Amino acid sequence: MTVAASTQILSQRWQHSKTRLAQAGFDAVVICGGFDMFYLTGYSASSYERITAFVTAVETNSSTKPSLVIPELEVALLDRSARELLTLEPWQDHDDPLDIIAAQLKNCSNVVVSDELWSQFLLGLQQRLPNTKFSCLSDAIGGLRSIKSADEMAALIEIGNAASSVATRLQEGEFQLIGRTEAEVAQDISTALLETGHSTVEFCIVASGPNSASPHHEPGSRIIEVDEMLLLDFGGRSEKGYCSDITRCLWTGSTVPTDVADIYQVLKEAQQCAVEVCRAGATLGSVDAAARNIIETAGFGDAFIHRTGHGIGTQVHEQPWVKAGNDELIQVGHSFSVEPGIYLDGKWGIRLEDIVVIEADGPVRCSNALHDLVAIG
Amino acid sequence: MTVAASTQILSQRWQHSKTRLAQAGFDAVVICGGFDMFYLTGYSASSYERITAFVTAVETNSSTKPSLVIPELEVALLDRSARELLTLEPWQDHDDPLDIIAAQLKNCSNVVVSDELWSQFLLGLQQRLPNTKFSCLSDAIGGLRSIKSADEMAALIEIGNAASSVATRLQEGEFQLIGRTEAEVAQDISTALLETGHSTVEFCIVASGPNSASPHHEPGSRIIEVDEMLLLDFGGRSEKGYCSDITRCLWTGSTVPTDVADIYQVLKEAQQCAVEVCRAGATLGSVDAAARNIIETAGFGDAFIHRTGHGIGTQVHEQPWVKAGNDELIQVGHSFSVEPGIYLDGKWGIRLEDIVVIEADGPVRCSNALHDLVAIG
Repeated sequence: MTVAASTQILSQRWQHSKTRLAQAGFDAVVICGGFDMFYLTGYSASSYERITAFVTAVETNSSTKPSLVIPELEVALLDRSARELLTLEPWQDHDDPLDIIAAQLKNCSNVVVSDELWSQFLLGLQQRLPNTKFSCLSDAIGGLRSIKSADEMAALIEIGNAASSVATRLQEGEFQLIGRTEAEVAQDISTALLETGHSTVEFCIVASGPNSASPHHEPGSRIIEVDEMLLLDFGGRSEKGYCSDITRCLWTGSTVPTDVADIYQVLKEAQQCAVEVCRAGATLGSVDAAARNIIETAGFGDAFIHRTGHGIGTQVHEQPWVKAGNDELIQVGHSFSVEPGIYLDGKWGIRLEDIVVIEADGPVRCSNALHDLVAIG
Repeated sequence: MTVAASTQILSQRWQHSKTRLAQAGFDAVVICGGFDMFYLTGYSASSYERITAFVTAVETNSSTKPSLVIPELEVALLDRSARELLTLEPWQDHDDPLDIIAAQLKNCSNVVVSDELWSQFLLGLQQRLPNTKFSCLSDAIGGLRSIKSADEMAALIEIGNAASSVATRLQEGEFQLIGRTEAEVAQDISTALLETGHSTVEFCIVASGPNSASPHHEPGSRIIEVDEMLLLDFGGRSEKGYCSDITRCLWTGSTVPTDVADIYQVLKEAQQCAVEVCRAGATLGSVDAAARNIIETAGFGDAFIHRTGHGIGTQVHEQPWVKAGNDELIQVGHSFSVEPGIYLDGKWGIRLEDIVVIEADGPVRCSNALHDLVAIG
């Protein structure tokens, strides 16, 4: 989140967002928390007990600047573009910022708030405005940032390919893996990400042997052995602020055992079929179903214990969700992960993940590292 | 947050918390988010779109284990003590976890939720339970973790003194400051914290010259010059999980100008008087008033643009708040910062901060680095 968009792009984003909100019947918005606020203002506020909120009515014809209710001691952190775009409403520690926000909403009946707004603040607003209906942004319009511009898609492809090049180097045996701890390998992968276009590392799962059956395993002191599964799921953020996320598995021996190879083949086919479904007009649920059907048919339905994917952009996890029953339609500009997995508790787990961005003629994978279970021993 | 308390301590904490909640008239609790959950369970869940929630009735005589509603793919992250203490309610991505939580609350009318619970989740619970009143933990009982045990106070004193030793080294001229950027100096201080008992650095403000007038300045590329103010505010977390936080100012010349020295003397006196007020039975607001009165009397009331302090423990900012009008009483076991400041926009700013823990016979400062504006040029 180091580089903000230009004032012009920020302004267009808010024009577009308020049109969507007005069409959905909302009359005001309260946005807190880093990513949505950064998207609209170029300013990223921390979420803590001192609230910072982007508060404004959404009349589409209004030329009134949106307000930023902000602790006075943080006003100096705002850059020029935020000051141009916003009317500042600084508050001091002895003020009650919820009174200031409620005063702005007093003529509104249908208000959208950030999903992440703290309950402490929502409860305070509900108390002050008992006749106002509050909804969250994801329920209201499926998130502010879920449709990416051409520039945003290019940024995701660029950083996705950077992470993919690290995966390729892992597949080609460039990293010492066997005999080292998961934590040491996670450190090496993190360093490689930072040397390859990433300005931060957001996560790095290195899960060896039975640990690979825990999808969100935290890399620890276990030493990677010969002839076992090694699941690697990592990503970071580019200087432009966009995120990568890729998963590949390696076999730490010279030959993948036949039973393992057979199950991996099911996963690979499931991921391939799911990616092919990713076209504008299909439902997000149908992508999940494509992967799940193949894994279920092969008898591993109970071992695929998570959704097929999540949106990605300036946040690693954001709208939309690729999950069973989601009948929201895929649109050009969506970007999300396709990452089915099969987890055999106590034995091993496998997952295969690419980010795809949806263009008019179909999905583009942001990572092209081999999709096979490469034996590196 | 690396070392969890023993199962026995975790169990005592919940017994104590539920007694307080029941006495305050609540019948159930929904705790989400890292710090309160870690305090009660030894498990720290991320706050993201997949909810993890500690959900339970608070009947004090009940021996029923509290429930942990948790994504199935994260169950493997729980350690043995969490599994002993809790009844697990794993959910999969195609389930609706709010249905599971609402089912547990169906006979409850007065429910407390974490301050930080996302609005997305609270709105979903309110929709499912329209007759239930929801309140947040800070309004209900002033926070779960605000009264520290003797062990917790010792941990805060230990890590506070570690950070204080870094401040002393800065005052003694051990670090090269003049001619270097704020960011470089922040890096050096961070390294020193990690070498002195801290397992993470939580923040490090290095604000030089006019930047010192911005209380939450982010250290950047400005080069520290001779004969100017340098404000240093830093802290981190110990391996036991407790936080430090200290602010000292340096003058980067051989002699502090008289006008600066005079104003600093006001600040030092304000901080000293405020610390002396920190005794069980006094209000938190009276600590703020003690500092503010002195600064106002000297004519700098408008330049003291923040509260006097914040609680500290496993979080850098937590209950209680040392602010104007807070009539909550100080109790033995409270720990908080006392950090008045004076900010002259465009010129410079000064702040002086110690953490105090409240013992039966009065406040104990966790940092003893010199309280003067030391000239290091």
